Amino acid sequence: MSKQNQHEGILFVVSAPSGAGKTSLCRELIDTFPEIGQSVSFTTRSMRAGEQDGVDYHFVDHSCFERMIKDNQLAEWAQVHGNLYGTALTTLEQAADQGIDLLLDIDYQGAAQLKKNCKHGVFIFILPPDLSELERRLRSRDTDNDEVIRRRLEAAQEEIAQAVWYDYLVVNDDLTSAVDKIKSIVIAERCRSERSGKLLQQIVK
Amino acid sequence: MSKQNQHEGILFVVSAPSGAGKTSLCRELIDTFPEIGQSVSFTTRSMRAGEQDGVDYHFVDHSCFERMIKDNQLAEWAQVHGNLYGTALTTLEQAADQGIDLLLDIDYQGAAQLKKNCKHGVFIFILPPDLSELERRLRSRDTDNDEVIRRRLEAAQEEIAQAVWYDYLVVNDDLTSAVDKIKSIVIAERCRSERSGKLLQQIVK
Repeated sequence: MSKQNQHEGILFVVSAPSGAGKTSLCRELIDTFPEIGQSVSFTTRSMRAGEQDGVDYHFVDHSCFERMIKDNQLAEWAQVHGNLYGTALTTLEQAADQGIDLLLDIDYQGAAQLKKNCKHGVFIFILPPDLSELERRLRSRDTDNDEVIRRRLEAAQEEIAQAVWYDYLVVNDDLTSAVDKIKSIVIAERCRSERSGKLLQQIVK
Repeated sequence: MSKQNQHEGILFVVSAPSGAGKTSLCRELIDTFPEIGQSVSFTTRSMRAGEQDGVDYHFVDHSCFERMIKDNQLAEWAQVHGNLYGTALTTLEQAADQGIDLLLDIDYQGAAQLKKNCKHGVFIFILPPDLSELERRLRSRDTDNDEVIRRRLEAAQEEIAQAVWYDYLVVNDDLTSAVDKIKSIVIAERCRSERSGKLLQQIVK
């Protein structure tokens, strides 16, 4: 276990509906805590220009991915637009053993699988202040048509209903305040006594 | 429930061995979060010059205090140097109902009673980096003789052994970092989903 954290690595799982600002928040979090690793997923989709195997994804073929599913090597997996995506259990176990905290940016269906497989995970859900603000943000991107926005808002309602089983809810009404909250969750979780290991013995020795 | 927090008030219970820096940390916390109330205890000891009834303590006589014990009106109580000190259940319940977070600076014996009586409490233990640093701090105060310091160090060992059942351990090796940790615990606890009440319904309504 690394000296740096003196605890088993923590898995921070972050979910949010599209438009809630998850990408900016996760980027700020990694900027503040560069020691937090980001989990590299396995996928069957083709590598795109500029992507690197083992950095952006572990690119594998369909039969390899299906063998991983069959052998229970995946902590979570999902099919999106015909491609398979998943997180290897070994990725999470190695980081935990080495005392490396990991950030996993994943939808609620993947998170629900992780909740079952990784008892030590910390589950954070980013929320928009309300649905009308979410709609405003989606429209201001100017990339989606009305139909796509309608579908995203419907999906958001379904996703937000799932937020109830997450450990923490962070309302992103103001970026600075939301960043402060998510950073605080990381710092506080690192102080939890069940993660302290031999800290107390070290102090009194 | 107050609009301000939109959650039931949280009871933050802070304990530490003498010399760990609890007083400075609690002061910084209240400076940052002036909306956090400080619980006013009941005591049978005499009022000192400069103290105010209902501000520093609720000053009551012995028979009144004993009636409170008998009627189960106290969330915790202890006898110290012949005087009785205690926290009324109503103080905690009213703050919780009004959505007011409370800070309670109390020793581990009182905290252990609260742990039983207040399921919603957040228990934080402040630790010195190690016992030799604690000894150095106690000596640098220049107020206690060797015998007093020896007794304080023995007490500290006993107290630190109790820290294991607290929710959070904050090592005060550096004041800025320890303040940051304790502030983060407050912010993170306010984001916990079990305290979110009707937040999710409000967002999707």
